[in-house]
Amino acid sequence: MTSEWSPVTRDLPIGVFDSGVGGLTVLRELRRRLPSESMIYLGDTARLPYGTKSVESIVRYTVKATDHLVGLGVKMLVVACNTASAVSLDPIRSRFAPLPVIGVVEPGAAAAVAASISGRHLVLATESTVKRHAYARAIHALAPDATVDERACSLFVALAEEGWTDGDIAESVARAYIDPIMKAGRPPDTIVLGCTHFPLLHGPIREAVGPGPVIVDSATTTAEAVAARLTADGLLAESKARGTLRLLATDGPDRFAAVGARFLGEPLGAHRVELVDL
Amino acid sequence: MTSEWSPVTRDLPIGVFDSGVGGLTVLRELRRRLPSESMIYLGDTARLPYGTKSVESIVRYTVKATDHLVGLGVKMLVVACNTASAVSLDPIRSRFAPLPVIGVVEPGAAAAVAASISGRHLVLATESTVKRHAYARAIHALAPDATVDERACSLFVALAEEGWTDGDIAESVARAYIDPIMKAGRPPDTIVLGCTHFPLLHGPIREAVGPGPVIVDSATTTAEAVAARLTADGLLAESKARGTLRLLATDGPDRFAAVGARFLGEPLGAHRVELVDL
Repeated sequence: MTSEWSPVTRDLPIGVFDSGVGGLTVLRELRRRLPSESMIYLGDTARLPYGTKSVESIVRYTVKATDHLVGLGVKMLVVACNTASAVSLDPIRSRFAPLPVIGVVEPGAAAAVAASISGRHLVLATESTVKRHAYARAIHALAPDATVDERACSLFVALAEEGWTDGDIAESVARAYIDPIMKAGRPPDTIVLGCTHFPLLHGPIREAVGPGPVIVDSATTTAEAVAARLTADGLLAESKARGTLRLLATDGPDRFAAVGARFLGEPLGAHRVELVDL
Repeated sequence: MTSEWSPVTRDLPIGVFDSGVGGLTVLRELRRRLPSESMIYLGDTARLPYGTKSVESIVRYTVKATDHLVGLGVKMLVVACNTASAVSLDPIRSRFAPLPVIGVVEPGAAAAVAASISGRHLVLATESTVKRHAYARAIHALAPDATVDERACSLFVALAEEGWTDGDIAESVARAYIDPIMKAGRPPDTIVLGCTHFPLLHGPIREAVGPGPVIVDSATTTAEAVAARLTADGLLAESKARGTLRLLATDGPDRFAAVGARFLGEPLGAHRVELVDL
């Protein structure tokens, strides 16, 4: 396989796919970890949220979006959406083999298992990710005896999108979700942020869980997994110059830019966002 | 036209359409105001949220859903979704004429104009309703000199769906949205709840606006408009028995029942919700 990857392939961008803006937290960590890599991000804002859709629809939408990214020329696909990672990873891997495809659930679960001493985990996620037990299944695949609590924290999504990520309201909401679990006997020693929106709430979540537990952020763990895979496959960008970034959305570039700037952690004008019709 | 409406027509149900569970607050007020009327509610939960979709998609989805309701036999259509009311009312009225079609925006706007002395209104709604200026346009159509502030309150939706509709968090959120407007010079004297989720937050909203302003709830005003129209058209149910209720959803009957019970204000088992494929 290695012989097929020419220097041109190494300098292709990484394709990052999400159902909306949440995956920009993964993109941010990817750019921090791998500054020389070029990236194309596609947010399927026209069809969000994926979480409430049927498995068939989620797979169909993910295939459409990743077909578009692969058509633009990428050397790797990152599925930054938790729902799509839980549901569509196998079909996407078969479809584009041998293209490497990395989701956000497996790296987060692996990091949680590696970090835990007690084997007790708390997964904070959206209602749909909790309902699918995506992280619980991934953690149990690695550590069958682990104890996994899952808590749907719907308000975290709204807080992150509204930009209310610190202060009294965010802290009260975090405590309301987390206190009942931390104050029960035998609290978890890892907290998995199982939604791409939640790294923005890191401060209030830390406040609520106290100094003890390790907070596992699937954005940073996915960036590590991508770096490891690029290295293993000999696919790291050859050029040391700063990588380029293209941002695509299927609807609402204005809102994508306004909300996305907070997720990406840098200013973002709507003119930067290309509208694509899938 | 009157001659066409037989007693059979009068005893047909009212069809109520929404993109999800929010319209159940309208259904609740309809059932309170018109207890002898039978009703069929259809929540298009598979395609929610409508707010972020294009106008063409919203009209297409609304037509599909209301076609289904009309096919079941209804004497009136209530479009309980703010987005669909703002976008799809004219096409739906033409499609089903002479069937009466009532949306939620016009009754709310009319009630606000009737209640206001100062001509200053505050509309609390979702981001998409605010962006379309649906209520501002409807208020200005009736009172061109009115001053209309519009405030997107995204967290109210999450609070209502989570069931966190009173207590510190709900009150802090309401104050965070509303205080800057109420504390500026010349505050509004009507507060329009321009999202079907918001009647559940009536308590915290009242706390935040103080005792002065009139809170106009588009659920109760729509129920009044429906009652007035049924009376005017001679379409009130002849039977005085309690009307029947059918609940349809296009996806997730479990979640529909769990969240919907709070919106409808009565217990709701998932077995009560019929899944329809549109």
